[in-house]
Amino acid sequence: MTQDALRHWRRDLHRHPEAAWCEFRTTTLIAQHLSELGFSIMLGDQLLASTLIMGREIDVEAQKARALHQGAHPEWLTRIDALTGVMGLWESGRPGPTLAFRFDIDAVEVEESQEASHLPGQGGWHSANPGWMHACAHDGHTAIGLVLAERIAALADRLTGRIKLFFQPAEEGCRGGKALAAGGQLDDVDALLALHIGIHASSGELVVNPTEFLCSTKFDVEFMGQAAHAGLEPNAGHNALAAACMATTAMLGIPRHRDGMTRINVGQLNGGSGRNVIPGHARLMGETRGATPALNDYMFNQVQQIVEGAALMQGATYHIRKQGEAIGIENSPALIEEIVPLAEGISLDTIHTRRFGASEDAGFLIERVQQHGGEAAYLILGANLAAPHHHPEFDFDEAVLAPGVALLEAWLLARLGR
Amino acid sequence: MTQDALRHWRRDLHRHPEAAWCEFRTTTLIAQHLSELGFSIMLGDQLLASTLIMGREIDVEAQKARALHQGAHPEWLTRIDALTGVMGLWESGRPGPTLAFRFDIDAVEVEESQEASHLPGQGGWHSANPGWMHACAHDGHTAIGLVLAERIAALADRLTGRIKLFFQPAEEGCRGGKALAAGGQLDDVDALLALHIGIHASSGELVVNPTEFLCSTKFDVEFMGQAAHAGLEPNAGHNALAAACMATTAMLGIPRHRDGMTRINVGQLNGGSGRNVIPGHARLMGETRGATPALNDYMFNQVQQIVEGAALMQGATYHIRKQGEAIGIENSPALIEEIVPLAEGISLDTIHTRRFGASEDAGFLIERVQQHGGEAAYLILGANLAAPHHHPEFDFDEAVLAPGVALLEAWLLARLGR
Amino acid sequence: MTQDALRHWRRDLHRHPEAAWCEFRTTTLIAQHLSELGFSIMLGDQLLASTLIMGREIDVEAQKARALHQGAHPEWLTRIDALTGVMGLWESGRPGPTLAFRFDIDAVEVEESQEASHLPGQGGWHSANPGWMHACAHDGHTAIGLVLAERIAALADRLTGRIKLFFQPAEEGCRGGKALAAGGQLDDVDALLALHIGIHASSGELVVNPTEFLCSTKFDVEFMGQAAHAGLEPNAGHNALAAACMATTAMLGIPRHRDGMTRINVGQLNGGSGRNVIPGHARLMGETRGATPALNDYMFNQVQQIVEGAALMQGATYHIRKQGEAIGIENSPALIEEIVPLAEGISLDTIHTRRFGASEDAGFLIERVQQHGGEAAYLILGANLAAPHHHPEFDFDEAVLAPGVALLEAWLLARLGR
Amino acid sequence: MTQDALRHWRRDLHRHPEAAWCEFRTTTLIAQHLSELGFSIMLGDQLLASTLIMGREIDVEAQKARALHQGAHPEWLTRIDALTGVMGLWESGRPGPTLAFRFDIDAVEVEESQEASHLPGQGGWHSANPGWMHACAHDGHTAIGLVLAERIAALADRLTGRIKLFFQPAEEGCRGGKALAAGGQLDDVDALLALHIGIHASSGELVVNPTEFLCSTKFDVEFMGQAAHAGLEPNAGHNALAAACMATTAMLGIPRHRDGMTRINVGQLNGGSGRNVIPGHARLMGETRGATPALNDYMFNQVQQIVEGAALMQGATYHIRKQGEAIGIENSPALIEEIVPLAEGISLDTIHTRRFGASEDAGFLIERVQQHGGEAAYLILGANLAAPHHHPEFDFDEAVLAPGVALLEAWLLARLGR
Repeated sequence: MTQDALRHWRRDLHRHPEAAWCEFRTTTLIAQHLSELGFSIMLGDQLLASTLIMGREIDVEAQKARALHQGAHPEWLTRIDALTGVMGLWESGRPGPTLAFRFDIDAVEVEESQEASHLPGQGGWHSANPGWMHACAHDGHTAIGLVLAERIAALADRLTGRIKLFFQPAEEGCRGGKALAAGGQLDDVDALLALHIGIHASSGELVVNPTEFLCSTKFDVEFMGQAAHAGLEPNAGHNALAAACMATTAMLGIPRHRDGMTRINVGQLNGGSGRNVIPGHARLMGETRGATPALNDYMFNQVQQIVEGAALMQGATYHIRKQGEAIGIENSPALIEEIVPLAEGISLDTIHTRRFGASEDAGFLIERVQQHGGEAAYLILGANLAAPHHHPEFDFDEAVLAPGVALLEAWLLARLGR
Repeated sequence: MTQDALRHWRRDLHRHPEAAWCEFRTTTLIAQHLSELGFSIMLGDQLLASTLIMGREIDVEAQKARALHQGAHPEWLTRIDALTGVMGLWESGRPGPTLAFRFDIDAVEVEESQEASHLPGQGGWHSANPGWMHACAHDGHTAIGLVLAERIAALADRLTGRIKLFFQPAEEGCRGGKALAAGGQLDDVDALLALHIGIHASSGELVVNPTEFLCSTKFDVEFMGQAAHAGLEPNAGHNALAAACMATTAMLGIPRHRDGMTRINVGQLNGGSGRNVIPGHARLMGETRGATPALNDYMFNQVQQIVEGAALMQGATYHIRKQGEAIGIENSPALIEEIVPLAEGISLDTIHTRRFGASEDAGFLIERVQQHGGEAAYLILGANLAAPHHHPEFDFDEAVLAPGVALLEAWLLARLGR
Repeated sequence: MTQDALRHWRRDLHRHPEAAWCEFRTTTLIAQHLSELGFSIMLGDQLLASTLIMGREIDVEAQKARALHQGAHPEWLTRIDALTGVMGLWESGRPGPTLAFRFDIDAVEVEESQEASHLPGQGGWHSANPGWMHACAHDGHTAIGLVLAERIAALADRLTGRIKLFFQPAEEGCRGGKALAAGGQLDDVDALLALHIGIHASSGELVVNPTEFLCSTKFDVEFMGQAAHAGLEPNAGHNALAAACMATTAMLGIPRHRDGMTRINVGQLNGGSGRNVIPGHARLMGETRGATPALNDYMFNQVQQIVEGAALMQGATYHIRKQGEAIGIENSPALIEEIVPLAEGISLDTIHTRRFGASEDAGFLIERVQQHGGEAAYLILGANLAAPHHHPEFDFDEAVLAPGVALLEAWLLARLGR
Repeated sequence: MTQDALRHWRRDLHRHPEAAWCEFRTTTLIAQHLSELGFSIMLGDQLLASTLIMGREIDVEAQKARALHQGAHPEWLTRIDALTGVMGLWESGRPGPTLAFRFDIDAVEVEESQEASHLPGQGGWHSANPGWMHACAHDGHTAIGLVLAERIAALADRLTGRIKLFFQPAEEGCRGGKALAAGGQLDDVDALLALHIGIHASSGELVVNPTEFLCSTKFDVEFMGQAAHAGLEPNAGHNALAAACMATTAMLGIPRHRDGMTRINVGQLNGGSGRNVIPGHARLMGETRGATPALNDYMFNQVQQIVEGAALMQGATYHIRKQGEAIGIENSPALIEEIVPLAEGISLDTIHTRRFGASEDAGFLIERVQQHGGEAAYLILGANLAAPHHHPEFDFDEAVLAPGVALLEAWLLARLGR
């Protein structure tokens, strides 16, 4: 029955993928479900420190209209002002610690495959939103959270303390985590678990200490120059596109670092207007990465220096805006030790250490909890995949969802059971 | 009465500016008017050599629908397959030479001013098509052509020979002239006149030998590389944006030329997709110019060499497409001499030589006529302006339209009158 | 006899070409000759404003030793401290105006031809200094000056006023003129003539109003970064060579100017040290040019902006040093009118206006005289050439030297004769 | 006594450092010493495959004259044609395996410190060759080889088989190893040892399995364009310096690689000639590195592609020349196991694995021996250092030389003793 519920939720969410900061349908369904189960509900604007929100440029009304059309819960949609994300708070009424879980809920910008072999298409639960797809298993994460909520309600009599279920918006691009961490709702949490499905581990495996989370900064750069007629007075322009091209070229040439892995990318550049107009404006989207915060800082500092110099070369001005950020993750050792026997108890093979090799803004949540004296860990729930993450044919073995719920439940009972 | 008709046509056209290759409304109105006056009508696809059409990427059905909505003549709209532009042929039925006139009919991509001082807005005949404006007086040129047609019909008994009125599409960006010249309808023309309103001359003046028409090539470049995950395997990409940036930088550095004025611009560049994806694709729009064909060729040859090298540096491929082209203009000397007394006869002050300083694809038509043994000239009909050409507040003194028609009529009578 | 003396001096100087600021032999021969004729002698350090000397990095002792070996006058060589150049002052002892002449004395860095057809080689008076050659006729200019001095001495009884013969060092690269102008010796000059042999005019012609003197700035840029081991800690470097490459690329891309001809060149770049060391130092040599001072200023301002930005991009510092400078020349109209009949009187065909098309630092001298209320002109003494200026086979028709002297003498007598 | 001999040789060599391919003095001293001890001598041109020699541009006669002046052995100097390096062959006359040792003999381009605290200066045995210094302990390696030769001679009665002592030229820049390996003298070697003093290990330590030898390619690139007068006809040039700048910029931007450490550097660039001449020629010196041969190949392939594209962009041609090369090293496991007890027998602390982190062209020798079925190993003989390798104040603890000889001797006896 748990398996049925999990499949139901997962497929419904898969059918309706929502971009970062646009998860209005998802947010209302979670709010409604948790509310019915007896959780207190806190919405996006009660959770997020607004000044730290990154990479959010959306048309709220259009997105709400779309969400409503796709089955968002009307009342909850009304209660949401503009920010997505939701937390459910379970009060046992009995003294005890506060445990928390984090599930990320957004989709990625991938056009879902229409190949006959692609399971969601076969089942008719493929993406209804062109260009967007749950190709990173956040639909699975959210389903686990929703069913875990059901289990908590079912176990109400046996629990002490408090439980917070965080459904985080905008994990893709590392845009939401920093604002959620700074929102304050994690400060009283004694222990936090987050998890991810897939990621170099197979069905039946659980990685309890993933490593090599990449630190990253996502940034936009805008160059403002002066347009001019390219034929009549080329000297009158300040070529913002030339500045952007120079900056791009120079960024790619930021030296490697002695201390380890770094990365730089300019993923998109758009500049200029008419063919015969010296470009007065250009904008680029980039990201730095580093194996450590220091390495990522080195990269981003170089980016800033390059942008300043490139603008100066063309007599242009510039603006750099952070659009996302991720830091490293180090699981609390005692929590790792606590998880291992629980996983084995439900027949999951535990793998101690495995390279994560990407960025995760759960890092901000984990850091926050640890800074306030709590414990936190990020787990990888292995799953056989049809194709790699972010691939148009991505799909994961749904059989891993139930053990996922079981593990979290086992931990809850171990900590809060009476 | 002529003045009234001119104002009527000009303002109607001004109200409904149409982009290059999208002049469906304009084309049908001309066709209907000339047809009613007794001209034989030839449409775009009978005039244009299709393989030489440049810079045409339009949604024909959407544009036709828009035109219809804005008053295009339904029957003519149906007769047009896809190409705009129209020629009216007047057969006097009496032997004699073939004279021709060229009027350009498209608008430019300028958002028309909403300042209170802007005359079209005061009169309610400002652009109904957001982002597009008759800011280069082609509305005036077309009005002159339409009223000249009326005069021809009125003078029917007094004329010999044949008259061709060419209403050319897509002069902006120099996209239509080359195809029109190659279409063959100019090959039997004994003498051709083209004119432009404004351009460094005042109301009451006529420049009979403008000089310094810039040769120009408009081009698009596409770089095709290989996208890759910028974090996971940066080495697997072929960075098309890096190629485009290098190419842009290098193009700006094409050396000046000993023999005279040259220009280069990359007016727009768009490359890449996701922030964390090494860009697999980039596209840029540029133009070269030169005071002579040889100078422009020098510039465009360098562009091609640079693009090839830049693609190679990144292991990318490329495609260069010409999107517009203009060559120089040299008026036939005898024709200049013929025009001067005619102009003075209607009290226009003739200025012999004045710098044009921009590009005009009438050059292809003039060259074609001259190559086939005919004469041709390009005249500047001076006009006081409210603001420079292509400016949002551009407007010209409509009082110059009637003398414009009078001059052309006088020439017709001088050549074809019996 | 004048012709013999001219040929003698010209060929002796041609045999011993000396680089800018190294004209020790030439300076002493002039000083000795003028001194013997009764002129007062002022040497380089009495003529030049030292802070404005440009492009001078020489080994004084080595050059003096070389000059001595090649026949420099030992006593005058001793009197010269370090700066070359000399002025001879003729005091008539009778009241009257002060007239001046300017002759440039340095050679260029060209390896003289060894072709059998090359006249200097045939006569054995080809360059004795490998890599250096009088390939710009300064040997002829100097010879004219020396023989003019003889004529002045011969005419002593017939003259009033004062005469200053300036033998300017370091015209090549436009390095000496600015310092000479600022030295003050021109401030009391009522009229100045300078001349150049050749330059687009033939034997028997005199151009009295050459135009289009190019303004130019010669500059060196030094980038100082931080060297680092390219393998062990590439991140620790500040790559001065990368800055220099970016700057070079960007300088080549300085936009053309609406108002006329501009030029930019980076003629030499040297950067870095060991193969495995991130370059901590780089240096480039460049020049800007412009048809007017404003155009050259535009170019050099852009250079400065680019250098600053490029250094910033790499976290490097920089130093820009002017190494040469030339401004425009406008002959005093009345002086032009005065010269024409004198030229015709000695059977020179006068050409009013012809394009000069290169740079000349006589401009500073002419400007200085004109600013102090005097008149000044730059003349082109036409000459048939064996090959263009600065070519290894350059040679000019020596027959033009005598009319050159005759013209200057005629002017002297017209102004100072009693 | 061994210690005295070691110190004597080491300091004499330190006093006379010789650049790669210039080790004429060193080669003759070794040849003479080994010859006197009874070794057969083979000289550079008998050892090296000439087509694989890299990075050798020397003035042989000048270097030989310098060497003679500094005490080279005259007869051996005569026997040397042009190539440095020497091998001594010891024939025991008794059947047995062939063992070999490799010692590198060249110095580095470092100006030795004149600080009072610098030991070589105190002792008067600091570098006599300005700009060159034994700052990488090759003087110590050579001294060990010379004294080992003495020990072999002393042990003559107790040995079987054959011993080859290779004194390799031009290790710095990885220029000589490839040619030596291909020369064929290693093909019959059953086991080879090479060693290096210092390198992250202290006196008394021996690293038996150093790892992370960097693969590297040293290369020069020459761009040949077309010079032209930058003022008169800038369009006529093909700017080789512009190509070199573009290439340099692009090389710095070669993407990082998923699989591990890579490096790129352009250590020196020289281009152009006169300030007013568009550069017709430019040359750069660079190097790539990679943690594996595949990674280094990736980098060097990109370099080649970039150079080709950059040349094309400017209409220039190019030439790439390899100037040095290093591959990885993997010690033969059984040989490692054999060395450990021998080292412990002479009280050296053995360290199994430690990062080398630089390039070593002994890799070619080791690969050659292993490919022919032999065993080979590279050892690090730890030594306390006064300053890091290649530092002007580099000096090592000479006390480590004697244990070095002792270890090699112990191995010889273990293998060849009877």
